[in-house]
Formats: sequence, C-alpha cells, structure tokens
Amino acid sequence: MVIVMGKANLVVGQSGGPTCVINSSLYGVIKEALRNEKIDKVFGTLNGVNGLINNNLVTLNDLDNENLELLKQTPSAILGSVRYCLKNDFSHEDYPKILETFKKNNIKYFLYIGGNDSMDTVMKLSKYFKEVNYECYVLGVPKTIDNDLVETDHTPGYGSAIRFIANSVAQVKEDTNCYKEGRMTIIEIMGRDAGWLTAGAKLASLNGSNPDLIYLPEEAFNLEDFLNKVNKIYQEKRKVLVCISEGIRDEKGEYILNVIGNSGDSDVFGHAQLGGVANALAIYTKQKLNIPTRGIELNLLQRCASNVSSDSDIKEAANCGRHAVKQVVKKQTGKMVVMVRENQESYKLRYELTDINKIANQIKYFPKEWIVNGCDISDEFIKYALPLINKEYKVKHVNGIVKFASIKSLIK
Amino acid sequence: MVIVMGKANLVVGQSGGPTCVINSSLYGVIKEALRNEKIDKVFGTLNGVNGLINNNLVTLNDLDNENLELLKQTPSAILGSVRYCLKNDFSHEDYPKILETFKKNNIKYFLYIGGNDSMDTVMKLSKYFKEVNYECYVLGVPKTIDNDLVETDHTPGYGSAIRFIANSVAQVKEDTNCYKEGRMTIIEIMGRDAGWLTAGAKLASLNGSNPDLIYLPEEAFNLEDFLNKVNKIYQEKRKVLVCISEGIRDEKGEYILNVIGNSGDSDVFGHAQLGGVANALAIYTKQKLNIPTRGIELNLLQRCASNVSSDSDIKEAANCGRHAVKQVVKKQTGKMVVMVRENQESYKLRYELTDINKIANQIKYFPKEWIVNGCDISDEFIKYALPLINKEYKVKHVNGIVKFASIKSLIK
Repeated sequence: MVIVMGKANLVVGQSGGPTCVINSSLYGVIKEALRNEKIDKVFGTLNGVNGLINNNLVTLNDLDNENLELLKQTPSAILGSVRYCLKNDFSHEDYPKILETFKKNNIKYFLYIGGNDSMDTVMKLSKYFKEVNYECYVLGVPKTIDNDLVETDHTPGYGSAIRFIANSVAQVKEDTNCYKEGRMTIIEIMGRDAGWLTAGAKLASLNGSNPDLIYLPEEAFNLEDFLNKVNKIYQEKRKVLVCISEGIRDEKGEYILNVIGNSGDSDVFGHAQLGGVANALAIYTKQKLNIPTRGIELNLLQRCASNVSSDSDIKEAANCGRHAVKQVVKKQTGKMVVMVRENQESYKLRYELTDINKIANQIKYFPKEWIVNGCDISDEFIKYALPLINKEYKVKHVNGIVKFASIKSLIK
Repeated sequence: MVIVMGKANLVVGQSGGPTCVINSSLYGVIKEALRNEKIDKVFGTLNGVNGLINNNLVTLNDLDNENLELLKQTPSAILGSVRYCLKNDFSHEDYPKILETFKKNNIKYFLYIGGNDSMDTVMKLSKYFKEVNYECYVLGVPKTIDNDLVETDHTPGYGSAIRFIANSVAQVKEDTNCYKEGRMTIIEIMGRDAGWLTAGAKLASLNGSNPDLIYLPEEAFNLEDFLNKVNKIYQEKRKVLVCISEGIRDEKGEYILNVIGNSGDSDVFGHAQLGGVANALAIYTKQKLNIPTRGIELNLLQRCASNVSSDSDIKEAANCGRHAVKQVVKKQTGKMVVMVRENQESYKLRYELTDINKIANQIKYFPKEWIVNGCDISDEFIKYALPLINKEYKVKHVNGIVKFASIKSLIK
C-alpha cells in the first residue's frame, strides 16, 4: 500500500439498529475526511466490527457525488450493521485480527456510528490500541431513534423518528374521527425502556390532533385505571386515541403484554405473544368495556421512513460525523460526539466530545417531571422536541419512490 | 329561504372508508360549484346520508380559502362519513325525511363521494326522486383505496395508497437488508377481496427494492409451497421480503389466518385472531423453518398518510368532483364519474359518466394475467400504476406536522 507522506487512513463503521440518518452521519464523515489534509483513504468497514475482524473494507473515496448526496435520504445502514460485542478480555482472537486489519491498511483513525452497545466497542478498542501501543484514535458518533444516550441533548435519528410518529398519530386521529360512532384506537410505539419515542406522539397536538392518553414505560401502567379513563372518554366523545410504548409495565415491573396474557380473564389471551401489546390491549379493552377497538403497531417505519425525515436531524447527524473527523485527527480518542443546546430560545447547538466511559451502557430515561398524571406529556417536552422536527428535507424521488444511495460499485 | 332566480342548491356528501383524497374531491366540487351560474348554495351533509335524513347540513360557500386549499392534503372525510345502506323499500321512513331536507333547502343537485356501497345510495335516491316526481339530479363521485370499482380506469385514493405502500416496502427492505443474518419480513397490506393494493408493493422495484414474494387474494395461497419458496430464498440470501394481502385464502377459499389458527400444528395458534395474518404467518414460518421472522401490518396509514400523497391522485380526485358538478347541472342523474385512459403512452385521462347500475355492488378484481407464478406481479401492472404515483404533492406543514383543513367554524 502506498502511504502518502504525513497522511494516514480513516475507517468508519455503522452498528446497532438502523435509523433514517445513520447514513447522513456517514455522509458527514466522508465529506469532512475527503477535505482533511491529514487523511488519505476513507475506508468503510462492512457490517461494523465484523468487517474489521475480517478485513472487509470498501474505499469510500471512490463514491460518486450523486450517491454521496443520496446518503442523506437513505435509511438503514449502507455499510451494513452488526450486533456484536467485543469481549472484555483483550487476549480474545478478535483483537489481533482487528489490529492486523488496521496495520495492513495504515489506519490511524476509527469512527464508529452507533448507540449504547456500539459505544462499548469504541471504549474497548481505544483501550486496546493503547495497550498494544498501536497509534490509533477512536471516536464514537451517536445514533439511535431511542434518544436514550446520556450526555447529549438528543441523538441523531430521534428527530426523524418522532416526526414520523407525530404525523402518523395526527393522520390516524383524523382518519378515525370521521365516524360518529368511533372506537378506541391504540397505537404502539417503539422504546422498550425509555419513553422518548412514545412522547413524540404528543407533538401531533401541534396541529390540533392531541392523543387522548399517552403511556410511557417510565411510569407504572395500571390496567383498571386505564379502563376507567378510556371508558369515560368514550362515553363522552365516542372515540378515544391512545398511544403506548411497547415497553409499558405494571407496578411490579411486569410487561403489560404478559400481564394480559396471564390474566386468565379471557380465553383470547392464552398466547399474547402473537400480536404486540397494542393488539392485546385493544382486545382486552373490547372485552372489558364492550366498545369497538383497534390496535396499530407503527413497527419498523418509525426508524426507516426517510421520505418524511426531519431536515435538522439530517443536518445534525452529518455535523456529528464532521465533528468526529475534525477531532479524531487532533488525536482525540475514547470519546463520543455530543450535542449541547447552547441557546434554548433560538435552538443553537454546539458539538463537543465526552468521555466514552460516561456514556457506554447507560440509559437516559424520559424525565418523570414531563409526564403529566401518568397519561399525558407536558409542554416542556414540546418545547424541547419542536426544533427537532419542524423542518422538511427536500426528498429526491425516482418514479415516486424515495431514492436510495448505493455502494454496490465499491464492493468487489 | 331566499331563492336566487334560476339557481338551485347543491348538496355533497362523503361515505364509506376514508382515503387521502376524498376531501380533494370535495375541494373540486366546491370550487366548481362556486363558479357555476346554476348553483347558489353548496351544502355539505354531515356523515353522509345521515345528515340528509336529519337535515344536518353546513354551508360550504362560507369556507375560507386557506381551509379550502388544505382540503387537498387532509385525509379522512371532513364532512364525516357513514356506513349506512338505504332500504330498498321507498316507503321506509328515511325517504320522506330526506325529501323534506331537500325541499326545505331547495336542493336540486346531490353528489355523493364514495365507493361500492355509496353508489347503491346514489342509485336508490336517483330512482326515488323520479318516483316521487321531485326534480333532483344525483351523481356519484368515485373513491376507494381498493381500486375495485368497475368501469373506471382506477379510483381516486388508490394512487396515494400505493404510493405509501411502495415507499414503505422500499424503506423496510432497505432497513432489513442491513444485517448479514437477516430474517423473513412479511408485510400485510389491505384489500380483503381484491389485490390491487398489495400489487402496489411491486412498485418498490422502481427504485430497486423488489419484494421477493407477493401474494394477492385472487390466487389460492398454498402454505407448503410458500414455505418452500421462503426457505429457498432464505438459504440463498439470508433475508426474505414477503408482501401479502390481508385476504389471502387457500384452495378452499378459507382465510389463511383461520387455516393457521385451526391447523393444530402449533400451540401458538389457538387464537390467531389476536394479530393479523402477517403476524400469524411469521410465527408459523418461524416454527416450520426455524428462521427468524417478523410480521408488519401497514394498517390505517395506507389510507391516511396524506403527507406522502400522490400529486396526480389529488388532482384527479378534484377533477372527478368538478366533472360531477358540470354534469349534474346538465340534469344528468343516476350515474357515476369514471376516468378513461385515453392515451396509454402519455397518460391522458378523460372524465365521463357511466350508468350507476353497472357499478353499484360490483367488484373489479386484479387481472389474473398480471399475476406471475402466483407470487409476483408483471410489468404490465407497473406500466399501469406508475402514472398514478410518480409525482409529489407539495405538502404544507405546521411545526413539522401535515396541516389539516377544518370546517369547525361552519358547524353551529
């Protein structure tokens, strides 16, 4: 391999669950790396740490401009993702393989775009390279629709997800309002532990489509209280819109899906695992209150509907990537890029680095003080979240379908 | 009531399941009626025929321009919808009540925007008014996401629905492609009897995101053959994307959801009604083939995601409404507006009227000759459907949420 004097190579990878903008962070990394004088080659590792172990890299310098720009509206992880945890023990065979890949390709900089688990990889590799005295700087670039990384104001991916959720809730509410005799509609939203995504349903109120009840996993869910509330609203309006997190639990910490499944109240719930909790709760409510119900699971579109992505989310994701490149060549290592809200009123962000040890394997829960009466979300959250969703990205379509970038030409 | 010389009043209603563009047809009706010299007042009947029976009308002349324009991007049925069939017997008490409403409000024209069942109402009322010698002209304006009305090239509402479906399928495929070891993902699409909506999944191939298998209700679904096909694709690619209609049936005409539920093969399926057929088939496949699976139900968003509506769908829906006004004042009655494709290559439409007796209570099935090997859709369909989805409507947002029209100010 020809080594350009004074320059070294960078490798970037993607890891964990995909989002609408993890490729936008990749875009930011590539754009900044290409113009950075300390960087020669920009490699992408295929399927994250997997590609590092198996020396499975592509050269991103060769990506044409059209595909580069399209990264911003391509959901998923174009380099391929992986769910793989490196072992704590540096004597594990993975480590020398990774080291070999780095040496062989003259890689001095490694950026990993990912969530909680991926930051664990950043932490371990930065330590490992120090231990074996190989000069390599490792930084994390945040991503997760869950918004549950600590130390950062929010995470890239979250804004687009709640933009999709809020629009979906508003549209479903409009739809279900058209009959005089309506039903209880219950929408299930992702987020097993943290309620950030489900809280996003509240943003539908910004165009007047307020959900009637919102339940997050941060507060215990009481089935009887739920039925009472639903019944009261239904008797008054003949329609109820409920938004719940997939992870709602009762007072004992048991998932509501299991509680209903084991309740023995009903012959329908022998095997509640068939549907999600929205379906289960819809059928349960129908039986208990004798009112029409419907369960809706928003499912994967929450993290991949890039045709309605948030413009600021796309830009911020790219900025996180750019910032990581700028900092890693300054020999920063073992840290993650975070976004700090400088100015509450005008929504100005500052990009910084935080020690990875403060972030890896931590969860940022939805603030309890923003949950109102256990079933609503406060205006404080709306103020916090509005700047994350309020601008549209101009999506490019081909034949009416959102156009995706491709890196196929780079893969041998 | 003051009667303007030579002028009479028109009433318009909406009926049946909502779509993204039923309000765009209303927009077309209002715009054309306001400028038509034979029409004075434009009434809207609330909740369709229900408002006619109970004299529950709003005056749409008073709708401000902003809300009028927003109708084009407002899903659902803003006048309220209804599922109510008038009796065959004209001596039923509904009829004189309706007649009284028409007389009291000097209504000479009635337009009903709806699907199969609503055209039955058009048929009956046009006959009834003739029988009682009340001068009133009644026309139907087509709508249904199902595209199952005969005599028209396609139905308003269908284009936006398949645009949402195709984009969703493409985005889910991109998402599920990111892991090396993937799963079978199975997407459930609306359409109990006709496969038009599910066929729309094929349009994802227009950006290279072809589903692996597509199953419509028009062809018998064989569980064993399905498992064999899925297994073969999975062994080769480690991921499979399947799109199915909610109404798929076996050789005996039994819904697959029931077939699985009653198969006794598995202890999970005692109560398959919990989830939809996608979930049931996902679990069934997982058990039979021992591969990871996931079921996704697109659910209500198919008919209400107006933030990704098709531009041509919006325009054509409005044109159907306009054409109905132009024709009804020419004393046309007992007919429905249809769209005729004049020119295959340049996609030019002509708007005409067809006798309602040919349309009411009929179903247009997906052409068998466009189904390939029972599990794919031919290029003929793509050619047919592409002009229905290939342009974007410029959606107006408020705070990042699609903005809806409101007629609250008109309701006393």
